[in-house]
Amino acid sequence: MKHNILMDLFPRTIDLIFTKQDLAKLKSIGNLVIWEGTRMPSEDIENHLPETEAIVGQPELPEERLRMAEKLKVIINVEGNFQPNVDYGYCFQKGIHVLNGGIVFGQAVAEMALGFALSLARSISQADSLFRKGAEVYGSPGCKTSFLISGKSIGIIGFGNLGRSLLPLLKPFHGFIRVYDPWLPDNCLREFGVQPCGLEELIKQSRIVFMLAGATTENRAMIGRRELQWLQENAIFILASRSSLVDFDALTEALQTGKFMAAVDVYPQEPFPKDHPIRRLDNVLLSSHRAGGLPETFKLMGEMIVDDLELIFRNLPPVRLQKATRETVVKMRSKPVG
Amino acid sequence: MKHNILMDLFPRTIDLIFTKQDLAKLKSIGNLVIWEGTRMPSEDIENHLPETEAIVGQPELPEERLRMAEKLKVIINVEGNFQPNVDYGYCFQKGIHVLNGGIVFGQAVAEMALGFALSLARSISQADSLFRKGAEVYGSPGCKTSFLISGKSIGIIGFGNLGRSLLPLLKPFHGFIRVYDPWLPDNCLREFGVQPCGLEELIKQSRIVFMLAGATTENRAMIGRRELQWLQENAIFILASRSSLVDFDALTEALQTGKFMAAVDVYPQEPFPKDHPIRRLDNVLLSSHRAGGLPETFKLMGEMIVDDLELIFRNLPPVRLQKATRETVVKMRSKPVG
Amino acid sequence: MKHNILMDLFPRTIDLIFTKQDLAKLKSIGNLVIWEGTRMPSEDIENHLPETEAIVGQPELPEERLRMAEKLKVIINVEGNFQPNVDYGYCFQKGIHVLNGGIVFGQAVAEMALGFALSLARSISQADSLFRKGAEVYGSPGCKTSFLISGKSIGIIGFGNLGRSLLPLLKPFHGFIRVYDPWLPDNCLREFGVQPCGLEELIKQSRIVFMLAGATTENRAMIGRRELQWLQENAIFILASRSSLVDFDALTEALQTGKFMAAVDVYPQEPFPKDHPIRRLDNVLLSSHRAGGLPETFKLMGEMIVDDLELIFRNLPPVRLQKATRETVVKMRSKPVG
Amino acid sequence: MKHNILMDLFPRTIDLIFTKQDLAKLKSIGNLVIWEGTRMPSEDIENHLPETEAIVGQPELPEERLRMAEKLKVIINVEGNFQPNVDYGYCFQKGIHVLNGGIVFGQAVAEMALGFALSLARSISQADSLFRKGAEVYGSPGCKTSFLISGKSIGIIGFGNLGRSLLPLLKPFHGFIRVYDPWLPDNCLREFGVQPCGLEELIKQSRIVFMLAGATTENRAMIGRRELQWLQENAIFILASRSSLVDFDALTEALQTGKFMAAVDVYPQEPFPKDHPIRRLDNVLLSSHRAGGLPETFKLMGEMIVDDLELIFRNLPPVRLQKATRETVVKMRSKPVG
Repeated sequence: MKHNILMDLFPRTIDLIFTKQDLAKLKSIGNLVIWEGTRMPSEDIENHLPETEAIVGQPELPEERLRMAEKLKVIINVEGNFQPNVDYGYCFQKGIHVLNGGIVFGQAVAEMALGFALSLARSISQADSLFRKGAEVYGSPGCKTSFLISGKSIGIIGFGNLGRSLLPLLKPFHGFIRVYDPWLPDNCLREFGVQPCGLEELIKQSRIVFMLAGATTENRAMIGRRELQWLQENAIFILASRSSLVDFDALTEALQTGKFMAAVDVYPQEPFPKDHPIRRLDNVLLSSHRAGGLPETFKLMGEMIVDDLELIFRNLPPVRLQKATRETVVKMRSKPVG
Repeated sequence: MKHNILMDLFPRTIDLIFTKQDLAKLKSIGNLVIWEGTRMPSEDIENHLPETEAIVGQPELPEERLRMAEKLKVIINVEGNFQPNVDYGYCFQKGIHVLNGGIVFGQAVAEMALGFALSLARSISQADSLFRKGAEVYGSPGCKTSFLISGKSIGIIGFGNLGRSLLPLLKPFHGFIRVYDPWLPDNCLREFGVQPCGLEELIKQSRIVFMLAGATTENRAMIGRRELQWLQENAIFILASRSSLVDFDALTEALQTGKFMAAVDVYPQEPFPKDHPIRRLDNVLLSSHRAGGLPETFKLMGEMIVDDLELIFRNLPPVRLQKATRETVVKMRSKPVG
Repeated sequence: MKHNILMDLFPRTIDLIFTKQDLAKLKSIGNLVIWEGTRMPSEDIENHLPETEAIVGQPELPEERLRMAEKLKVIINVEGNFQPNVDYGYCFQKGIHVLNGGIVFGQAVAEMALGFALSLARSISQADSLFRKGAEVYGSPGCKTSFLISGKSIGIIGFGNLGRSLLPLLKPFHGFIRVYDPWLPDNCLREFGVQPCGLEELIKQSRIVFMLAGATTENRAMIGRRELQWLQENAIFILASRSSLVDFDALTEALQTGKFMAAVDVYPQEPFPKDHPIRRLDNVLLSSHRAGGLPETFKLMGEMIVDDLELIFRNLPPVRLQKATRETVVKMRSKPVG
Repeated sequence: MKHNILMDLFPRTIDLIFTKQDLAKLKSIGNLVIWEGTRMPSEDIENHLPETEAIVGQPELPEERLRMAEKLKVIINVEGNFQPNVDYGYCFQKGIHVLNGGIVFGQAVAEMALGFALSLARSISQADSLFRKGAEVYGSPGCKTSFLISGKSIGIIGFGNLGRSLLPLLKPFHGFIRVYDPWLPDNCLREFGVQPCGLEELIKQSRIVFMLAGATTENRAMIGRRELQWLQENAIFILASRSSLVDFDALTEALQTGKFMAAVDVYPQEPFPKDHPIRRLDNVLLSSHRAGGLPETFKLMGEMIVDDLELIFRNLPPVRLQKATRETVVKMRSKPVG
């Protein structure tokens, strides 16, 4: 018996998320109602809800709509951040799973963050630019400010999906790794082989600081003027999760002093003003919100959706996508994708 | 009792190689004769040889000079490549260790090679350049050609010091790793957890190919037109050991087709012609022989020198620097540092 | 403000579970009502329920009692198996966490299982016994049937807490690891670096088979006569989770043929009949339900309880103990501790 | 062109060392003269020496014989310890490789040592013995003295082939690992991720002490009364390399106090006296020199011999077997296999 699946995918699409194989697999277990390109019209949604067992996407799902969906077992967000479109309390009460595909971005962001760190520690991007201008410096005179990541002290701010994906990539560099995450007990961090640490000690003691926390109601601008001053001379600061975690004006000013280096992937507004002074600084590596959204990352989301739907329809708990939790879902504050 | 150590360091210097601590340690075990900046004059060398127990540097050491050095236990090359300055056969016969500090470059080159791979796979350098021009593309549209390293097939050509340093950095990406090294038995490679492989299969099957072989009398231009055609569409080719291993004209032409991407750190001549077309290609990342010569790399050489001298003076075998071997030292072909 | 915690610990005790430090920490966040040695009397429980915010232990908690506990946020089982003492449906509906301390046994069982495997592969226990009788055989004649674990194919049945704790201990042996777990998608297993596999292929292809599945309503006697015949000549079969997963009579008979070796830690009845023939077999290693219950394992449970209570009282989700899930809690079938 | 290989294998045999495949491979590269069961007669050896390019085995090879062997490139010891049968100085002078197959025992000894540690930490052998007597104790009362290896401080004495094979097996237990090896610089040990340490601190600080040093002229009875008193209460001491490293009488006495546990695989005499009191102690695990000599270990030796001979005949340096070094070969003191 096939299960009714309502797919209201905007801003994603079937082709973005699913390989042919995964789509075929999905069709073999479900009757799919697919809407792409815009939000599905209300009437359509409401017509389908009474028979729907799974929703993939971010339609508005207030209590009155959820009440219509008596067979609903799961709602899967494909944007990547839990948003206020769902009445989470109702879902928790009724045992409707609310899942998030955003977990797939972990590996992509982790690789990018490591790439940023290596690029800055070795001036890879800058040296390429010099070479194109014919101004390259050969050999050790060209490496005077370069340093190894191996053996350096590393700080990770936020140890959710992103931080946990980064950790194994850092392990073979044998540095001392500190983690700050106020939602996790110290013993939990120790089990990962890292040193739990307060924010101040982390920033002061680390040569490379990775900002990988998600945006919550509690951490807006947690890195401000004071925190940026804690950074070591020639430290590397990598901002690869959410822009709101940093006071961007303070970051720009601090970078202008030249004391440390930074990689920035996320901005207070996107597109970012063309005349912003950060665009002209040599000690910053700029990237335009490109850490997560790779083609294969989205395909991984599709694979996880199919896997978890199969489990749920077999009356087993989902294991791959991220589950909304009662306590934290209300604290999530990421904005929808532009 | 202190040991007589002759240090003819050009093109290196004491300050480049030794931390204060290591220099102090060295002075506590040895009477140092130090010459920097130019080659030590012949007369000086020959005056010192009869009492010298260790030579650090690359003076000319033909048999007639070595015969003067009756107390000599070890010669340590600080340039990084075994060169024809030493009568190796005489040393082997007399049990004089010939050691090479070049082993210290392994970690530095490995980190750089991974940095190159991540930079190309994610267009880090290119995106930074676009951002500075105000031409950045945000989010997934800016990542259309990006790919994860995780899970990709990787090929390593040459599994000496450089390849072995890279391997642990690649392991957490869980790709299938093939290695081509004609000097090593397949079973030896299998013990490292990699797949031994012929050159053709390696190039054809790998998404990322790392050229990390040293230059020998046997491998000049081992990567030529034919081999470059074996590369996959959108493959990454990283040249981080010696330029002579590649037919550079063929590489430039192949890159001009746009079929694959490359990072290049070494060149047939350095400085490289300012008008060379490779400088204008978008699918190449250019670096000016900057993979190995970091300040801390040279300091590691000093640490290893002190450690091995201590062992040798205690009548124990050296364990840190690379030992010349009878069979391969005659095949080494790297040129002296400019 | 302190939180009211009701501790009805039987068959565990405060001293078993908590170090002095953890107990002090617990007292600093909670007003503790502690009952040990027997089940807490009903009247006491019901008197306390209206103000109780956390219950540690396994009192009967049907809906009528849970309705009294309007402030209840969490129930923590300290026995190690979810049992029918709780109205789980009510808890899920009301958002009361139901947690299980059994997760602490993972590392202990994993180490024991590896110890069993090494002991059998190398006849450690048997050789000790021979030595005490003066019948030892020296050197290679004494190792004729011994084998390395390194490089052998390994099968793990059940990939919950126990299997996941074993996996990292097995990784450095570089064997090919197959896992059978019908509750997990193949892709999930692949992310752990193991090969998902059907039961028949797993048993037939593995030199060492670890039975680490929990007891559910679906897997009673999943290893019977037929499955035992799939075992390789000189295979090792390790039963370290629940006895009910194996047809014990069939196991005894199969071991009597001498075809394979086994380690057994759990039995259909405990104490086990003194005259059972398995006690006299040379190809079996016998242990009396000793894989999990170490002093430090119980102390780890205490540490996790304190950590998760702190989180819950801070209105954050628990992260260390195992959470009951709606779909599987009804399928759990382990019996209470004797 | 085939190469002449003289194989005087006693106390090993062709069948012990070579798989059919490896023997076939060897025959394809060499003309084999094989002698087994006893030492090859002198006349035969001397007749063959002038044309011999490789010797596999331990015939007497004083200078006068080596002078006959003008084409000799390599001598491979298949017993496992360098012995005074060879004029090493002559070989070093002439560039004749002297190799040792003993390196193959590393993995086997490492697995056994870990098996001993797990067996003692969890009373695996003792519990099996109790179960067979019907005196088993179930559950946690039966684990009162058991402890996890995870997180414990570990000490390794001697960091040659055996210690280096053990290290990766210990890593996933996440303990703090100290190593004492007077032939290695501290920095060398640090590169392995272990803490270099003096003998006294190592013994005092470690819960489990692995004695894995080889026997040299410098370390006879390095563990005597004083050192045994440094062991912690309930420590585990594992003797798995050479008996001569320990004052065996002192070890027996110390074990009689019951303060710590030990596993013993090697003895001052083998066979060991039937009435020795150590045979009756409960806190010791006894094994009869069974840590290394497994069938597959010897086959690995054959594989390595074939690999290294192929390299040497291709005029490349051997990479798999252990090389004799001028400084240490004279300090090796292991006795020939009985």
